[in-house]
Amino acid sequence: MISVSIITIGDELLIGQVIDTNSAWIAQELNKIGIPVLRRVAVGDNFDQIWNTLNEESQKSKVILITGGLGPTADDITKPLLCKYFDGKMVINNDALENVTHLFEKIFKRPLTERNIKQAEVPNSCKVLINPRGTAPGMLFEKKDCIFISMPGVPHEMKGIMSDHVIPLLLEKFELPHISHRTLVTFGIGESMLADLIQSYEEKLPTHIKLAYLPNYGIVRLRLTSSGKNKDAIENEIEQLFCELQLMVKDYLVTNEDEPMEKVVAKLLLKNNQTLSTAESCTGGYLSHLITSIPGSSAYFLGSIVSYSNSLKENLLDVKNITIEFNGAVSEAVVIEMAKGALKKLNTTYTVALSGIMGPDGGSTEKPVGTVWIAVGNQESIITKQFHFRFDRQKNIQLTAMNAYNLLRVFILDQTKN
Amino acid sequence: MISVSIITIGDELLIGQVIDTNSAWIAQELNKIGIPVLRRVAVGDNFDQIWNTLNEESQKSKVILITGGLGPTADDITKPLLCKYFDGKMVINNDALENVTHLFEKIFKRPLTERNIKQAEVPNSCKVLINPRGTAPGMLFEKKDCIFISMPGVPHEMKGIMSDHVIPLLLEKFELPHISHRTLVTFGIGESMLADLIQSYEEKLPTHIKLAYLPNYGIVRLRLTSSGKNKDAIENEIEQLFCELQLMVKDYLVTNEDEPMEKVVAKLLLKNNQTLSTAESCTGGYLSHLITSIPGSSAYFLGSIVSYSNSLKENLLDVKNITIEFNGAVSEAVVIEMAKGALKKLNTTYTVALSGIMGPDGGSTEKPVGTVWIAVGNQESIITKQFHFRFDRQKNIQLTAMNAYNLLRVFILDQTKN
Repeated sequence: MISVSIITIGDELLIGQVIDTNSAWIAQELNKIGIPVLRRVAVGDNFDQIWNTLNEESQKSKVILITGGLGPTADDITKPLLCKYFDGKMVINNDALENVTHLFEKIFKRPLTERNIKQAEVPNSCKVLINPRGTAPGMLFEKKDCIFISMPGVPHEMKGIMSDHVIPLLLEKFELPHISHRTLVTFGIGESMLADLIQSYEEKLPTHIKLAYLPNYGIVRLRLTSSGKNKDAIENEIEQLFCELQLMVKDYLVTNEDEPMEKVVAKLLLKNNQTLSTAESCTGGYLSHLITSIPGSSAYFLGSIVSYSNSLKENLLDVKNITIEFNGAVSEAVVIEMAKGALKKLNTTYTVALSGIMGPDGGSTEKPVGTVWIAVGNQESIITKQFHFRFDRQKNIQLTAMNAYNLLRVFILDQTKN
Repeated sequence: MISVSIITIGDELLIGQVIDTNSAWIAQELNKIGIPVLRRVAVGDNFDQIWNTLNEESQKSKVILITGGLGPTADDITKPLLCKYFDGKMVINNDALENVTHLFEKIFKRPLTERNIKQAEVPNSCKVLINPRGTAPGMLFEKKDCIFISMPGVPHEMKGIMSDHVIPLLLEKFELPHISHRTLVTFGIGESMLADLIQSYEEKLPTHIKLAYLPNYGIVRLRLTSSGKNKDAIENEIEQLFCELQLMVKDYLVTNEDEPMEKVVAKLLLKNNQTLSTAESCTGGYLSHLITSIPGSSAYFLGSIVSYSNSLKENLLDVKNITIEFNGAVSEAVVIEMAKGALKKLNTTYTVALSGIMGPDGGSTEKPVGTVWIAVGNQESIITKQFHFRFDRQKNIQLTAMNAYNLLRVFILDQTKN
């Protein structure tokens, strides 16, 4: 069975200035075609480190995918290093030069400099994988039964080379096992309690099937994984086990697909042909941002009023001044008026209104940092719930958003169940 | 000189279901105290893989930081593995048990189960690092001059153990070199052109000083790094070189600190005692989310109207129906009216209004996906600019936000320069 090592190159990864999102994307794509990732290694822009890592990983995996270190600037040493590692010499590649010329003439509309032309230089020991999205080409090398593919670190360029060249090449070259995953999403139950709930199920799982717990912001995803040669047998078995699992966690089940909470809500709205607005204070537009990140969201999401200041709660959402004075901005009475105001002004089927203290400042003894009121409703009814989170600002915003969308999800299901 | 290897454990990292943000944070914290990270390795929940990686990394680094694999569920095998690796046997640790008991009784307010109690079991060969934020304690082992520290993968728990235990311990144990970084942020110039602009500067840099280019969404950050024993000499030298660098890129310079674009705008607003609102269409609340992620943003950010639908552009922002009919929602005329509406309704010093097509659908021949109009203004004047991005939805939203905040930044500087 073949496996892959991913090597990411760049000092920025080792001093923490950049979060490596490329590796996760590559791993997802490889998984889809049945190739497991064995290891991911990040090293700096250091000759010996990169050289040794190439040696080590090629003893562990048959395919080595490398990202980063191919920029046009002096700190990027990967290309000359690969040239030496694979006993080549640097030559201008005509296809790569044509690509660079085209980019500068037609897309960037800037004159081509010496430095840009140098981007079309590659070791003559490689096969060039053209990168129409940028100036650094992908490069494929072979050595001792091992395939090495070097790609730029810019995510959309790397993704293009993976889809255009690497995935087709791997599919052609290897006979791959079938890998199957099933993921469901639960909300409102911790990892330990969930494990207790499904203990008997987990104990009787066949050894070739793995169950993983993936907790994140109130959500725990459960993932079943199986692999083997007989696709039909694997699919049938995992499907049946997945059905059982869904039944066991049904009280906490959000969706039986691997999708975010806001996508579940979006699908409900779309199915019912209904619309949503939000009236946000403490989340500052994050609910709105989450749902509008989904392509096509204009079909069900009409807009949001982010009333971060009290005056805007009054002016834009018709919250009464006395309600704020009497109860404070973070109160049940205020989120109810915000919700009513939003339903009236934005004229949607549902709305979510929230107000809270995200920290680090702004808390008091009665209302400490992490206090949040959420209201969810439609023209007929409004429900409210108070929360007490106890984390940092970013995590409080995330948890507030997830809980708000979950309340809305349950509310929509209640309203539409007949 | 000591160095650190970070090992992250979990199948979810190798199938791409989780993006590793822990490593970046750990690297940042280590950097602050002068400890370089040599390598980051991610491996799955696999006995041999973890075991071999511990062997390999301990031959490269003196300190091995391990995260993940400590959950209460069966897929997490790291704790028993460490017990065997360090020749221990599992025992209940009283401090850890006290912590778990306290968490369940006082914080979670749920009964303590057998599974929870097992979280207080540790190898007797380790020193326990108490984790008041969660049930899995940190564990410290020593073997052949090498320190191994295992921490849970939950970010805020890991961060707590790092801050409370690991950083103080490393500071006490090692005599550390002084590391100094200086980072500036440029906007509106590509990596290659920037490299050409500062070529002479880069060529004359002393060899012990590294310059790195960190491109991201229209921004390129430049980072100088130096390290050594004499703190004053290092600081003086890097400060002088950093001043020179700022002068060379002054036409593109956003800030001479390592901070995001929205933070630069926030600081300008705070300094001038001015306020901001946004009127967002295509970015769906993302501008508002970015600025409200900054603690204390209520001092200058009053709110946003996210008018995702045309009807809300009319109802909430007083955009005239005929303006939309005649020009389309993505047009200069519409963003000007959105900006005027926002200034009137939200009553702030400045506003940013935007409308565009983020994709993948919704484009046309005259207005392809990636077409965006941005207006920035105050009561006296409004400026507009059209953009053509050519990426995916997420990247288009990001680029729109960065360009909007940059336009606003320049506008504020123009308005306040006297």
